[in-house]
Amino acid sequence: MSASIITLLTDFGAGSGYPAQMKGVILGLHPGATLVDLSHEVPAYRVLVGQALLLEAAAAFPPGTIHVAVVDPGVGTSRRGLVVSGGDKAPGQLFVGPDNGLLWPFVRNGRAWELSNPALRRPEVAPTFHGRDVFAPAAAHLALGLTPEQFGPEVLDPVRLQPPRVRREGGAVVGEIVHVDTFGNLISNLSREDLPPTEAAALKVSIGGRTLSGVQGTYASVPAGSLVALMGSAGFLEIAVREGSAARELRLEDGQGMPVVVEEA
Amino acid sequence: MSASIITLLTDFGAGSGYPAQMKGVILGLHPGATLVDLSHEVPAYRVLVGQALLLEAAAAFPPGTIHVAVVDPGVGTSRRGLVVSGGDKAPGQLFVGPDNGLLWPFVRNGRAWELSNPALRRPEVAPTFHGRDVFAPAAAHLALGLTPEQFGPEVLDPVRLQPPRVRREGGAVVGEIVHVDTFGNLISNLSREDLPPTEAAALKVSIGGRTLSGVQGTYASVPAGSLVALMGSAGFLEIAVREGSAARELRLEDGQGMPVVVEEA
Amino acid sequence: MSASIITLLTDFGAGSGYPAQMKGVILGLHPGATLVDLSHEVPAYRVLVGQALLLEAAAAFPPGTIHVAVVDPGVGTSRRGLVVSGGDKAPGQLFVGPDNGLLWPFVRNGRAWELSNPALRRPEVAPTFHGRDVFAPAAAHLALGLTPEQFGPEVLDPVRLQPPRVRREGGAVVGEIVHVDTFGNLISNLSREDLPPTEAAALKVSIGGRTLSGVQGTYASVPAGSLVALMGSAGFLEIAVREGSAARELRLEDGQGMPVVVEEA
Repeated sequence: MSASIITLLTDFGAGSGYPAQMKGVILGLHPGATLVDLSHEVPAYRVLVGQALLLEAAAAFPPGTIHVAVVDPGVGTSRRGLVVSGGDKAPGQLFVGPDNGLLWPFVRNGRAWELSNPALRRPEVAPTFHGRDVFAPAAAHLALGLTPEQFGPEVLDPVRLQPPRVRREGGAVVGEIVHVDTFGNLISNLSREDLPPTEAAALKVSIGGRTLSGVQGTYASVPAGSLVALMGSAGFLEIAVREGSAARELRLEDGQGMPVVVEEA
Repeated sequence: MSASIITLLTDFGAGSGYPAQMKGVILGLHPGATLVDLSHEVPAYRVLVGQALLLEAAAAFPPGTIHVAVVDPGVGTSRRGLVVSGGDKAPGQLFVGPDNGLLWPFVRNGRAWELSNPALRRPEVAPTFHGRDVFAPAAAHLALGLTPEQFGPEVLDPVRLQPPRVRREGGAVVGEIVHVDTFGNLISNLSREDLPPTEAAALKVSIGGRTLSGVQGTYASVPAGSLVALMGSAGFLEIAVREGSAARELRLEDGQGMPVVVEEA
Repeated sequence: MSASIITLLTDFGAGSGYPAQMKGVILGLHPGATLVDLSHEVPAYRVLVGQALLLEAAAAFPPGTIHVAVVDPGVGTSRRGLVVSGGDKAPGQLFVGPDNGLLWPFVRNGRAWELSNPALRRPEVAPTFHGRDVFAPAAAHLALGLTPEQFGPEVLDPVRLQPPRVRREGGAVVGEIVHVDTFGNLISNLSREDLPPTEAAALKVSIGGRTLSGVQGTYASVPAGSLVALMGSAGFLEIAVREGSAARELRLEDGQGMPVVVEEA
């Protein structure tokens, strides 16, 4: 039996009504689809954060799953839309989304086709909402059995966006900062599962010459103005200053790429 | 085939457990229903915000969809409950919710019946949770094939609540403030799709004699104390002061109805 | 017909991607399962808050429902996993989660078995994510018809964690503080349904020798620095100080167990 699971990952916010509109379009074409929210809380436009969440989640889904991912600063420009077969990162799974690197980990070992067939979009396509008008119908049609080739020509030069590697050095885990948000919080590529399998309180986090004791559950675990390492809302290790800016505290103009080391204390 | 899609829109908060209780009741009556969260983050009691989200979302759903909407400051009073046929705003769709104007855009071009049949409620109705005990069972029964007429008499004098119009004047979009929240944020009736199809950074927002450059992603895009225009969490353009009150800054006692103009800079 | 409803309750945050991973595992084993998010916003590690949400929600679900609950500070330690039959608190329902008291209200009148059969877990079990690797597959297998006995031996000494009682004294409702969060907010065991069936504005809340007028919708209903009683995001009455700490204001080191009285003003 072919599963008809379709997941949705966006930076829209679950309460915005936009994910629901995508679901309405999918269910209008494929009333039997099983819809799963992967996350709608990707920080706005942070393609690498979305990529990391998608990579981590795809591993838990069965063959046949179709993932729609919309972190899409280029919506309305000429950037292409893609359908991607997951290759060995996600055997038998398909991915739909913008050609901006979001799907690169899957394209790299798989194949990609352009979403250019106008018959497989909604009749009117809003320039600001391809999630609803292009990507959602594509996912529904794929779940109904259409093949990627029916959407358009194969794409041989997709946008590449390499996820930063997590390395292990002895007992330490070395990641890097993927994203500095508008509050100056430094968000790494380290998920909870990457960290050493120890109580969060017994970990030591080093970044920019500073060492933090323990991985906390919330900003409020430290006094105002202090640095804190915590698991952020999207599930990645984050370095923050409570009611302040970690980027400023660590004198970073742009912390992206800065290494962060986690080990047992 | 009749779809059995039931959407839920509330101001309960997704994490509160209340939307899940509504789903439990629906699935107890109709195990095959397909449930979609439209939003549970409507600002508490803001009927016009809920109305706008519902109007926008209904357009993406297929005929046969049943929408349960609960933004209900009058729960427990004598206000009626309604089932509404969507008219030409939502052909073939049905709406269930309180008679407080939330469903007015659909009633206006459709018809409404009172939810007065006690056999179609839960045996015990909590005065504070008609969403679970009255509206959820009504939606389930409708999805199972009952007709609106089976719930009670037609309602010929429903509560009217006109959504403010979005106007276009040349290249400019003119909306108005629908809601001033308790932080003094001014929330308009302008959704992302209403705005000119330009990069958010290239837009100019005018309100109360002030002009703001760009539509930001978050309050934190400006220094503390500054005015900012941004897309709020419910998907509408919002004028705020970071860590302050836009209502106070713009010397509004109650900004509801104040015009807001968005155009390319 | 046996319903295949599986609910999920966690403290992971809906946007973290972790609940979606649990769903991927469940749907991989049981593509026809109907998944319902009960809440993913339980405050981190607050077992009693999760227990209260679960108790309240289970009452709205039909027999046959399987609830997976993961508020699990002991993940990765030797604490057992349980499958619990709901007894008279939730007839015909089953519960899956850690043996840390979270499921105690159901165990007390029901029975519990250990999740020790390795064949019914994922092949690799991450020490930090039993929700995905142990509890999710258990729920799927139960929905597919396996019996609790197939998972392991009956547990005769489960961890007990008594939910604090809500008492009624004349027209007053007496609850207690279950949880003091890191902001100093005092979260009670009183849900909206426990409160007298009166408008929130007409209630009087007494705690620690102070009396508050009205139950508000948000912290911002009072000036900064003032005490406020409100319904918190998880659906329980909460005493807070806007932009401050109610625990400090009421000179509590740890307010857990402190009585809170609500009555009509």
